[in-house]
Amino acid sequence: KNRLVVDLSADYRFSSPKVYEEWYGVKHTDHERLYKAVYGLPEINREEIKGVDIIANPGCYATAAILSVYPLHKEELLDGLVYVDAKSGISGAGKKLSAEYLFMNRNENLTPYSVNAHRHMGEITDFLSSELGDRFAGLMFCPHLLPVERGILSSTYARLKRSLTDEELREIYFDYYENEGFVNICPEGVFPQLSDVNHTNMCSIGLKSAGDSVIAISAIDNLIKGASGQAVQNMNIALKFKENEGLV
Amino acid sequence: KNRLVVDLSADYRFSSPKVYEEWYGVKHTDHERLYKAVYGLPEINREEIKGVDIIANPGCYATAAILSVYPLHKEELLDGLVYVDAKSGISGAGKKLSAEYLFMNRNENLTPYSVNAHRHMGEITDFLSSELGDRFAGLMFCPHLLPVERGILSSTYARLKRSLTDEELREIYFDYYENEGFVNICPEGVFPQLSDVNHTNMCSIGLKSAGDSVIAISAIDNLIKGASGQAVQNMNIALKFKENEGLV
Amino acid sequence: KNRLVVDLSADYRFSSPKVYEEWYGVKHTDHERLYKAVYGLPEINREEIKGVDIIANPGCYATAAILSVYPLHKEELLDGLVYVDAKSGISGAGKKLSAEYLFMNRNENLTPYSVNAHRHMGEITDFLSSELGDRFAGLMFCPHLLPVERGILSSTYARLKRSLTDEELREIYFDYYENEGFVNICPEGVFPQLSDVNHTNMCSIGLKSAGDSVIAISAIDNLIKGASGQAVQNMNIALKFKENEGLV
Amino acid sequence: KNRLVVDLSADYRFSSPKVYEEWYGVKHTDHERLYKAVYGLPEINREEIKGVDIIANPGCYATAAILSVYPLHKEELLDGLVYVDAKSGISGAGKKLSAEYLFMNRNENLTPYSVNAHRHMGEITDFLSSELGDRFAGLMFCPHLLPVERGILSSTYARLKRSLTDEELREIYFDYYENEGFVNICPEGVFPQLSDVNHTNMCSIGLKSAGDSVIAISAIDNLIKGASGQAVQNMNIALKFKENEGLV
Repeated sequence: KNRLVVDLSADYRFSSPKVYEEWYGVKHTDHERLYKAVYGLPEINREEIKGVDIIANPGCYATAAILSVYPLHKEELLDGLVYVDAKSGISGAGKKLSAEYLFMNRNENLTPYSVNAHRHMGEITDFLSSELGDRFAGLMFCPHLLPVERGILSSTYARLKRSLTDEELREIYFDYYENEGFVNICPEGVFPQLSDVNHTNMCSIGLKSAGDSVIAISAIDNLIKGASGQAVQNMNIALKFKENEGLV
Repeated sequence: KNRLVVDLSADYRFSSPKVYEEWYGVKHTDHERLYKAVYGLPEINREEIKGVDIIANPGCYATAAILSVYPLHKEELLDGLVYVDAKSGISGAGKKLSAEYLFMNRNENLTPYSVNAHRHMGEITDFLSSELGDRFAGLMFCPHLLPVERGILSSTYARLKRSLTDEELREIYFDYYENEGFVNICPEGVFPQLSDVNHTNMCSIGLKSAGDSVIAISAIDNLIKGASGQAVQNMNIALKFKENEGLV
Repeated sequence: KNRLVVDLSADYRFSSPKVYEEWYGVKHTDHERLYKAVYGLPEINREEIKGVDIIANPGCYATAAILSVYPLHKEELLDGLVYVDAKSGISGAGKKLSAEYLFMNRNENLTPYSVNAHRHMGEITDFLSSELGDRFAGLMFCPHLLPVERGILSSTYARLKRSLTDEELREIYFDYYENEGFVNICPEGVFPQLSDVNHTNMCSIGLKSAGDSVIAISAIDNLIKGASGQAVQNMNIALKFKENEGLV
Repeated sequence: KNRLVVDLSADYRFSSPKVYEEWYGVKHTDHERLYKAVYGLPEINREEIKGVDIIANPGCYATAAILSVYPLHKEELLDGLVYVDAKSGISGAGKKLSAEYLFMNRNENLTPYSVNAHRHMGEITDFLSSELGDRFAGLMFCPHLLPVERGILSSTYARLKRSLTDEELREIYFDYYENEGFVNICPEGVFPQLSDVNHTNMCSIGLKSAGDSVIAISAIDNLIKGASGQAVQNMNIALKFKENEGLV
């Protein structure tokens, strides 16, 4: 009976059956576990993960986007909608047999899809709202299919309630993530690329401010920090193993 | 003496030697022609192009970004900074022998570069300001190297002074570009991809509104509409040939 | 009634219904036209093509392989089986919705398929035998799927009845192809690559001898010289247009 | 003083300074160690590797080619030159800053190079001759640059002194490699592809006979079985660790 489930589906990621049903278009039939499950983003929810027995492993885009914007969100610095422009390798779609995933349609191409309608947009909104309620204004979200196997680069553009220097901006992120083994804040003027994080559980974040606005670019491997690696990280925390056991 | 020059370099693209020197870091030594040259974006400057003898052919990123945002800019609907997230094939860098352009560093990768510091950012700002002066608030600009040979996808996120429905938004773009043979405004819910425009002189634009914000995604072939094709289009106009002669 | 058909299917490529049926596994139902049709390889069959009204446009692999080995074959220099190692871009399979053509299964991969069993092997054998009968010993044929869109590189390894120097070898090919606008024989020590021929109707051939053996490497664009370009070339010849009209 | 060196360079791979100098064009200055070193191909030289203190780790192409042809060679079934058509990912060239390795020159391309002149051809010849002397007739060797990061597919075409059925052919390979953990002989009709072996220390071999001839296709990861993985395998053997320690 001391079973731990780390669920990689979306079934337990939402705060209520209602929100799940809005984005997935099907009835949620397991309300009890939905309310009990913890959203498994260790850098934010580590304490709740300890000892829980159902962990909803976050979506890949959601992981990249939330980690890149969370410090500004939590500090209530965001002014209005944030804009997330995300690009993913094709393994994000698994090996689904659909014309859009043929080599001939992906190679030498870049394709926006589900513009402002992707299900992970619901997941990001639901999670960020669960902390600030209406004080989170929401986001526009535009994912793209990149002609690579793996990796997500997610760029968040946002207006702030007050201007920050590059140094102040990075300071805020350092405060949030200073003890995190799987988050890297890049030095000034440096930004992450897919090859920095692929085949690892790292999330690397680069930051730039300009006037009242910022750009925060995060990179993860969608198959590791965006899926199975984060699941192992969650398992390690829940079962009190070393958090980085089996991970790089 | 009836010579026409269509210049593909950046030398005559700016409104003054001063702005050129800020972005290129070298002295401008031909002020007279700089002031005489016309910025060769036919969809906006067609009348000025007719009869001129020096045309400054626009940069590839600048072409994609300006066309995607111009109607909102001209209508003075933009509220604050606009955010341009642009992705380019590697031919944008020519065949420069530099480690960052090696197959081993580009394949299976996506790399932001010159974040908020790329020279085309100066070109876009200078051109848009030349019409509205300080009423253009500026932009944040983040270009990326895509692992493909050719093509630019440029996504502009912007806040507006008033909310627009998707229909109103597309109506504005239709008004500006309705007689343009090389601009396509996508139907509602459709967005351009590189394969729609590569090997053509087309710029295809997809639009989405949400609350007070919009996203405008444009795609061009950086080697055609972003370079030699637009040069031919400019030549055709200046010499009173059919504008699409030799172009598809 | 003066109709010309250039057929891109395999239906009229074989010398008899029997051979067709062996390789395609279906009954041939139009024997009359099969016997009347000419195999449309202009560099070999130009005279027969003039004035015919059904041309069987050759297969892409067959075009590359036959052109690369024909002079040695015709001179009866080949000793025993020849070995053809061919690599094709994925457009060779069209846009068939099959798991093997998914980006995730092609990218970063190279896959031999239909080893010594591909239908073009029958086509090559049938055509070469039609000239020399049993004096053509046959071939082993191994095609591969390359992770590119277009282009075929076909390498033929063969033992000869007498040793040739590199110069003698190239001399033989020059003799056969000296007036051919769409065949290029590379200088000594130079071998073709896909980028030399893609987007053109050219077949480029590089040669090397060693002891009693040779390697002949040919490159074509499977969509042009291997398909529609050769069809246009055939049409031009049959209708007495300039042979290179519309082709590069 | 009980030091073990596994050398990944070519310095100790040859049987004599003379042969080394022919292929590398520089004086060999360490004859003593050259004669002492063992060629580290465990599937063939396992006993010599045990206890030696200098192991010359084989070249990537040489590993793939030798393993694919060794049983036929050792059984003295080969009749005349063998033909090796090898294709390698670009990591084989490291990250050398040369125009031929630029993304723009590799992407959507396939390029034969060093045709019948590559240094690994010398290595293969030297090693195979060291067993049979003049009874090994030699090879033609044609390597190609594939537009992928890693992996080698090497196809050997050969004429035999007597015809073999597919079953007899595979039987011979099974006999040689039956206890080998890092060699896989594919079932009849199955041939290896890069994705079967990449990121592993495996060499997978597919076989086909036709008349008096055979094709043997082998696949390895050039960075693992073709380099560091084989080095670890050699170290494990020399130091009497489990041979697959640290390897997959």
